[in-house]
Amino acid sequence: MTADDIDATSPEAVFSRGRDVLARQPFSVLIGAELAALTPGQCELHVPITDQIRQQHGFVHGGVVSYAADNALTYAGGTALGRPVITSEFKINYVRPAVGSRLIARARAEYVGRTQAVCRCEVFVRDDAGGEKLCALAQGTIALLPQRSSKR
Amino acid sequence: MTADDIDATSPEAVFSRGRDVLARQPFSVLIGAELAALTPGQCELHVPITDQIRQQHGFVHGGVVSYAADNALTYAGGTALGRPVITSEFKINYVRPAVGSRLIARARAEYVGRTQAVCRCEVFVRDDAGGEKLCALAQGTIALLPQRSSKR
Amino acid sequence: MTADDIDATSPEAVFSRGRDVLARQPFSVLIGAELAALTPGQCELHVPITDQIRQQHGFVHGGVVSYAADNALTYAGGTALGRPVITSEFKINYVRPAVGSRLIARARAEYVGRTQAVCRCEVFVRDDAGGEKLCALAQGTIALLPQRSSKR
Amino acid sequence: MTADDIDATSPEAVFSRGRDVLARQPFSVLIGAELAALTPGQCELHVPITDQIRQQHGFVHGGVVSYAADNALTYAGGTALGRPVITSEFKINYVRPAVGSRLIARARAEYVGRTQAVCRCEVFVRDDAGGEKLCALAQGTIALLPQRSSKR
Repeated sequence: MTADDIDATSPEAVFSRGRDVLARQPFSVLIGAELAALTPGQCELHVPITDQIRQQHGFVHGGVVSYAADNALTYAGGTALGRPVITSEFKINYVRPAVGSRLIARARAEYVGRTQAVCRCEVFVRDDAGGEKLCALAQGTIALLPQRSSKR
Repeated sequence: MTADDIDATSPEAVFSRGRDVLARQPFSVLIGAELAALTPGQCELHVPITDQIRQQHGFVHGGVVSYAADNALTYAGGTALGRPVITSEFKINYVRPAVGSRLIARARAEYVGRTQAVCRCEVFVRDDAGGEKLCALAQGTIALLPQRSSKR
Repeated sequence: MTADDIDATSPEAVFSRGRDVLARQPFSVLIGAELAALTPGQCELHVPITDQIRQQHGFVHGGVVSYAADNALTYAGGTALGRPVITSEFKINYVRPAVGSRLIARARAEYVGRTQAVCRCEVFVRDDAGGEKLCALAQGTIALLPQRSSKR
Repeated sequence: MTADDIDATSPEAVFSRGRDVLARQPFSVLIGAELAALTPGQCELHVPITDQIRQQHGFVHGGVVSYAADNALTYAGGTALGRPVITSEFKINYVRPAVGSRLIARARAEYVGRTQAVCRCEVFVRDDAGGEKLCALAQGTIALLPQRSSKR
């Protein structure tokens, strides 16, 4: 929901900074999320599909798909704005059950203003053969963290 | 993302059936979700707040808040439609960082048609004193599972 | 999309102020929208159903239903925040074709923060007998107008 | 909200069929909407900016921007599914006030299933110099019209 301080300047710094943030998110660590790529305004987040993230039919739980979209959107918006942000809202359309070996969320900032970024994300599921299938599409608003709360 | 077979008739049966479904969702078990109440068209889902579901600032991760909303919406819609369903889409607005002892998602079906239900959900965070604060609002579409996939 | 200066203090002033704003919206005048009620955080907007707002099957065009929701959400949020606002985003679920004599959008602010309000709206269609049927549900974010643009 | 019978086969037929549908939408005619391009799964809808579609600050009313997105999404989904459809839901993020000479909504089907299509749309405003600026982004669900209602 927040990806603060991803305000590093060099590409390497942005990526390593993003990984530090993910490593400090106990929930992301719990489900094994990995930051595959991060540049200002763009993010690719992976979640290896293990039994623990499934629902009763063996598909990845929708909540995990929405987590992946939420987090990827926040990274894309946070790096685009270059300052501490918070995810204000997002919507997601599920189009296919997530069955495969890896969940891949790709997000980008489509509009970057002074105080917010509107980002979009597609979540794919990759099978063992490396093929990818779209399983969800999301769109949301990433906003600068109100000053009051950004003190840390 | 799906809450199938919650088609039991008696209130007790609906609730116990709902608990069975939750118990068969490895991800829900992983984060300790509890079904507090379930009647046709209404659901209350709890998630005790533990360190493992937090993000880097100690708040509950937005992905967990969206999971709670997603799952509660699905239960509300599934029990309203009385047949296997799937969450087609939803949107969520985060309004306050989730800090407290328990996440509480309350959802209800606002419209129930022949093939879909439109549901709304509010996610609250309860503190140790029992006080509740709204932290997110969601709205989404729960649809009957396409026949093809509903065979089990 | 914006409902500025609805910062009057007395109930009467809020309502008459709101009507002034509507009267200054050429598009709202074009389709005959009427402000039926307005109090801080709550709004009821009507649109008499005439042939000019229909689509090819005689139903009210979805774009008019979304206009009614958008405008009602903005009034609810603008009066709740008491300062110039802008509609940042909203989502709408259409649940029934709008057939009747009058479109009625009722919106309220569900959460009011320092810089934004999250509002919900239901759009009903009233028939000649006075009966009402729900035809759409919406949820959106109304935000304070950035200072820069609020100069007029 | 519905764009039925856009099931023509040749590109020319799809486009002329789409124009017929628009011409039969009194509301679209009222605000002067024009179908600039239509191919299976893709649509470009224009709305010349005239005083009658503005709000109180001279910007195009958000309701007209949402109408353009709604209609473009429906055309994209309807031509992708090739059968009578209905817009189930959509969300829109406004990113910039619409000021210019022409509103341009471009939509495409991002996912096409057996019973629904998930589409995205960007709404731009074109100025007299021909430059375009993004003013809104939308995403929504276009579904096949329930058989019951598709008889005409």
